[in-house]
Amino acid sequence: MDLGEKAAVTSGSSFWRSTAVTGVPDIMLTDGPHGVRKALPDSAELLASEPSTCFPPAVALGSTWDPALARRVGEALGDEARAMDVQVLLGPGINLKRSPLGGRNFEYFAEDPLLTGVLAVEWVNGLQSRGVGASLKHYAVNSQETDRMRVSADVDERTLREIYLRAFQRVVTHAKPWTVMCAYNRVNGVLASQHHWLLTEVLRGEWGYEGLVVSDWGAVADRVEAVRAGLDLTMPGPDPDGDRRLVEAVRSGALDESTLDTAVSRVAELVRAALAARTPGATFDADAHHALAREVAGRGIVLLKNEGGTLPLEAGCGPVAVLGEYARTPRYQGGGSSQINPTRLDNALDEITALADGPVTFAPGYDDVDAAVALARDAAVAIVFAGTDRETEGADRDSIDLPPAHVELIERVAAANPRTVVVLSNGAVLRTGPWDAAVPAVVEGWLLGQAGGGAIADVLFGRVNPSGRLTETIPLRLPDHPSYLDFPGEAGHVRYGEGVFVGYRGFDARRQQVAYPFGHGLSYTTFAYGEATATATADGLVVRLSVTNTGGRDGREVVQAYVSLPGSSVRRAPRELKAFANVAVPAGGTVEVELVIARDDLAYWDTRVSRWIVEGGTYQVEVGASSRDLRVTATAAVDGDDARVPLTGESTIAEWLSDPRGAQALGEVFASLAAGGEAGAMAGTVGNPEMLTLMGSLPLSRLAVFAGEAFSPAAIEKLAATVN
Amino acid sequence: MDLGEKAAVTSGSSFWRSTAVTGVPDIMLTDGPHGVRKALPDSAELLASEPSTCFPPAVALGSTWDPALARRVGEALGDEARAMDVQVLLGPGINLKRSPLGGRNFEYFAEDPLLTGVLAVEWVNGLQSRGVGASLKHYAVNSQETDRMRVSADVDERTLREIYLRAFQRVVTHAKPWTVMCAYNRVNGVLASQHHWLLTEVLRGEWGYEGLVVSDWGAVADRVEAVRAGLDLTMPGPDPDGDRRLVEAVRSGALDESTLDTAVSRVAELVRAALAARTPGATFDADAHHALAREVAGRGIVLLKNEGGTLPLEAGCGPVAVLGEYARTPRYQGGGSSQINPTRLDNALDEITALADGPVTFAPGYDDVDAAVALARDAAVAIVFAGTDRETEGADRDSIDLPPAHVELIERVAAANPRTVVVLSNGAVLRTGPWDAAVPAVVEGWLLGQAGGGAIADVLFGRVNPSGRLTETIPLRLPDHPSYLDFPGEAGHVRYGEGVFVGYRGFDARRQQVAYPFGHGLSYTTFAYGEATATATADGLVVRLSVTNTGGRDGREVVQAYVSLPGSSVRRAPRELKAFANVAVPAGGTVEVELVIARDDLAYWDTRVSRWIVEGGTYQVEVGASSRDLRVTATAAVDGDDARVPLTGESTIAEWLSDPRGAQALGEVFASLAAGGEAGAMAGTVGNPEMLTLMGSLPLSRLAVFAGEAFSPAAIEKLAATVN
Repeated sequence: MDLGEKAAVTSGSSFWRSTAVTGVPDIMLTDGPHGVRKALPDSAELLASEPSTCFPPAVALGSTWDPALARRVGEALGDEARAMDVQVLLGPGINLKRSPLGGRNFEYFAEDPLLTGVLAVEWVNGLQSRGVGASLKHYAVNSQETDRMRVSADVDERTLREIYLRAFQRVVTHAKPWTVMCAYNRVNGVLASQHHWLLTEVLRGEWGYEGLVVSDWGAVADRVEAVRAGLDLTMPGPDPDGDRRLVEAVRSGALDESTLDTAVSRVAELVRAALAARTPGATFDADAHHALAREVAGRGIVLLKNEGGTLPLEAGCGPVAVLGEYARTPRYQGGGSSQINPTRLDNALDEITALADGPVTFAPGYDDVDAAVALARDAAVAIVFAGTDRETEGADRDSIDLPPAHVELIERVAAANPRTVVVLSNGAVLRTGPWDAAVPAVVEGWLLGQAGGGAIADVLFGRVNPSGRLTETIPLRLPDHPSYLDFPGEAGHVRYGEGVFVGYRGFDARRQQVAYPFGHGLSYTTFAYGEATATATADGLVVRLSVTNTGGRDGREVVQAYVSLPGSSVRRAPRELKAFANVAVPAGGTVEVELVIARDDLAYWDTRVSRWIVEGGTYQVEVGASSRDLRVTATAAVDGDDARVPLTGESTIAEWLSDPRGAQALGEVFASLAAGGEAGAMAGTVGNPEMLTLMGSLPLSRLAVFAGEAFSPAAIEKLAATVN
Repeated sequence: MDLGEKAAVTSGSSFWRSTAVTGVPDIMLTDGPHGVRKALPDSAELLASEPSTCFPPAVALGSTWDPALARRVGEALGDEARAMDVQVLLGPGINLKRSPLGGRNFEYFAEDPLLTGVLAVEWVNGLQSRGVGASLKHYAVNSQETDRMRVSADVDERTLREIYLRAFQRVVTHAKPWTVMCAYNRVNGVLASQHHWLLTEVLRGEWGYEGLVVSDWGAVADRVEAVRAGLDLTMPGPDPDGDRRLVEAVRSGALDESTLDTAVSRVAELVRAALAARTPGATFDADAHHALAREVAGRGIVLLKNEGGTLPLEAGCGPVAVLGEYARTPRYQGGGSSQINPTRLDNALDEITALADGPVTFAPGYDDVDAAVALARDAAVAIVFAGTDRETEGADRDSIDLPPAHVELIERVAAANPRTVVVLSNGAVLRTGPWDAAVPAVVEGWLLGQAGGGAIADVLFGRVNPSGRLTETIPLRLPDHPSYLDFPGEAGHVRYGEGVFVGYRGFDARRQQVAYPFGHGLSYTTFAYGEATATATADGLVVRLSVTNTGGRDGREVVQAYVSLPGSSVRRAPRELKAFANVAVPAGGTVEVELVIARDDLAYWDTRVSRWIVEGGTYQVEVGASSRDLRVTATAAVDGDDARVPLTGESTIAEWLSDPRGAQALGEVFASLAAGGEAGAMAGTVGNPEMLTLMGSLPLSRLAVFAGEAFSPAAIEKLAATVN
């Protein structure tokens, strides 16, 4: 391979294919993540694509809180990709839902990194089990669409590590995705595509990643800088000008040829592995995938509210009024690169009609409220479909409110028929107030993919007992949200001002009321929690408890474990999700639940020592059905990692005095000074409480100016040597 | 002067004196800011000092909202300083009250930079009119005590400019303080004492400061770096080791001798001016100053609540029960370097007794609630003194709650006597709930200096009609506060996560309820506001309105003007204080009020162009008696500054298309491409709405990879030349 070929193979040859050079064929990479969007050749329309199954977008898959389902979806996607001769599917999207305004939240799983990571690991495992590579995206801190190609996400390192990189770390280390896709945005001022710390030091150096890093499409501004930073494949292409600049950089010595060789070898290895895994002639079962899409959609629906047993509906319960155009024309996916050309498309109106066993009436509603109200008045139950059509890649939302026409429809229908059920269609959470006070039941129907209509009917009529849970807090008002003051930023920067207090962490830290908390979701049955025990092991904590289905219907419970360390030396959220289990419990039955919390997941990022540190102490594990429906608590003592910071001249007097050896050594110096002059006398009083308040924060080295040679650099070095 | 002398003159010769060298005598600098704390010589006790008037600390002076009073206090301090042969008084302290937990908030004026700056300008003018230099401190971003010698205040530039530096800028440019004192802390990682950008580029380069920069005591870690950064005088001293290192740095060429010479010349000039202004034999009138201290304290008291005309009390109204030790043993100043040895000390119990014209009973209360309740039961009115003794330099508070014993005293007394008045003593705001619901009247008595006892009696008995206003929002709960998640930081960093949304700006932005808003304070009379007009001038805005005293008592109104720009292109607080007037209005009288808003104060800091920019548009001026008691609104159109950012390859497609010339130029290129191949065709569709959503955020230069040579760097440069 000559230098020109080396350069060429590190970019695409077209929109969706890598470049073939001597000894290295090309492969196809194509959009995901909730379907295989194989673009039609020679189409001027960027989004035209071959038909494939539109599975529920991540917002719904995430709401299942079920890693096993995520794996099955990954497998099905792998089956479709290999049937379509696609080698890499561009997903999963695992950015954090930082703000409910995020235009692409529907493509992401959760506001919590553990939940995101656990689901994405199984999704990747499922996909790659079929010989198709995943592309873990968008690395990193790509939690908004506004100014997405330039904006710098300004985020402190602890937040970066604990929140925004954490899911990436989990998936990279647990599932070894074939590729990682860099984000468009900047992170702390540097383009993610050219970010050596992110792409090389952290991803490969710390996490041991051995796969390929591909750019998001158009993310690379400078091919040479990108290769230098650790980016292997720039997409799309061809990019002869960039190739030329790479060649020149190597020839001039500005770029080591070995650096380029590394990128080339990663491309070659990906191509080799992908083509070896190819399954010519493979097909997929579109009916089975449609059924899977319906199953997942049913499991992703979240029953927010259900007063007086409004739901489930009984077949034959009387006339059902279905109101709102979204019942007939479903909102089932968002806009942008993930947009699938579905193999089939269900709508809720037809599916409700199929299950109702009685008259079903319909009005489109939003422009025709009077007609809808008239139908509602004559019905046994009114089902209002409401939602938003604003979710798309490329644009954030500017509101979390339902359109006014939808609110009016809900309120007028509810006034006409007290048995009104609202079904929401939305890619990120919407404000549910004040209208939800007027209705007894609210079903959060997200964007559910091509079989969502059937899934909604399944839940409404109790063919599926709902078990979906919120992966994103629903606030009472947008201004309550932790991200509110800093989203989407301005002038090229978005400050992640809320730090680690993202989502429920922030609402809990400020003890704010919310509309529906993270982890919330109702069932048609009820569950009782037994006492919990927590046991510390070398690997972390094991929490055990029993859960009993105390109602008359089989159901699933999502048992959630939130951890805190009372008295922690670092600021933490009041509780953090550290484990969960999704368990089927037959009516009247009891299951034993074991929640395993990895020791790694107890750690915080210590910026003083630049390491993950598990702080020693008695951890509290609160177990419950949501982040604010905590049923039982267990505690366990955990041994801490050593995070002692040596005493130096930059350590304060108070730090020296709080260390037993430091206090003794310093006390001796003070005593010897007390006999001296003004400064010495002053220094001799530093241990007095009032003086300690004033002087305790002084770095020891600054005492030199008060007390002379006793605190010269050499003297402090000697002192430190005796105590460290 | 030889090199050794040059080095020596840039540090102190003792705790409180500069160093005399050939041709340059020494001067004395001494703590302020609300009194002259001239240390006793040869005392081992750092805080022992000569008697002087303890004026109300800044928390109370600030609450007067009266620049004329601030000037009179400055003059009086100048009189005392020159009588004590002090050349520089270390004040005013103008750091922002970022959090109510700030241990030194009592030394600062407000959570608002305009109010802080306007008051401090007059304080400095007053002081310096007496030939005594001010020391504007602590420059900059020193809003906490925790880890104060090391912590880095991590704050974005817009916040720094608009909030934390703004008052410094105003005082430097309007009052020319002889000295500016650098802070202990780091700002964005660099010690303030060694911060070239702060000390030289901004302070001198942008603001034109010509005075001297002195270190806070012990703030300098490296004399060479400090001098290089623009620090002139390191205190305290002597520091022979530092002197030696300075000499070596000059000799080795590491430091330009001219840089040291600049510092030396500034010290010499300060000493020359200070000694020239000296007034040997000057004295001061301690009685007059005590009276001034009482006047200011009375004006600084804030009447928070006064239901049913509970206050003022009538002399001879019946037995008065005074409850709580603070009535007898006043909390009148905070701890630390500002602690004054007062010339006299009034207490409220004696002063109430003097004015009551009837029986006054007393119980210390906090440890003896039953006795206090018994007295309250037999009294016509009960006055409970409550507060906190935790305010001190060197330590932040960990709570804003009253001590439980004080709350119990209030609640039990209120249960025994419905006419219960609470008088608070505190240096920063305290939570007033839930106990304030139980009492009809609450008087915020701050820390009021040595004559505070008399001032409290004056307000209680109506000898002073209260006109003080909050300079700091009282939140309902600490977790509501904008700073809550990020105060006081950890591991050496405090992130100013709330950005510009400090204090009321944050409460307003999130539309939160508060206990008592910024600017709030009641009077014993009432005021009506006439219609307001706003007129744009070349210098800014002039707002005019009439204010009528509609009650039966002479009083003062603090008329506050808050400005906003609806539809601003940058994120702003919903309203910002931009002018205020403190006017005396006789009972039944009307005064015409003119509020002048400088054009400079309408500007925001534009990080794209690194300049202050007045955005053009129709500004809204809300005028009222507090930030949440807005009575009248006026608007005025203001011409904007030019802040156009030229179009470049880094400008997005959307930015190009939103510029008329850019849209035309780009349209022509797209049209020429549309005839081409796949990429060209795609590029040709970029103007379509769906495509624009996806592609609009792409910097133009990235189109090269989609559309080749048409968007090469050279082509874009040419394109830009035609449109900029």
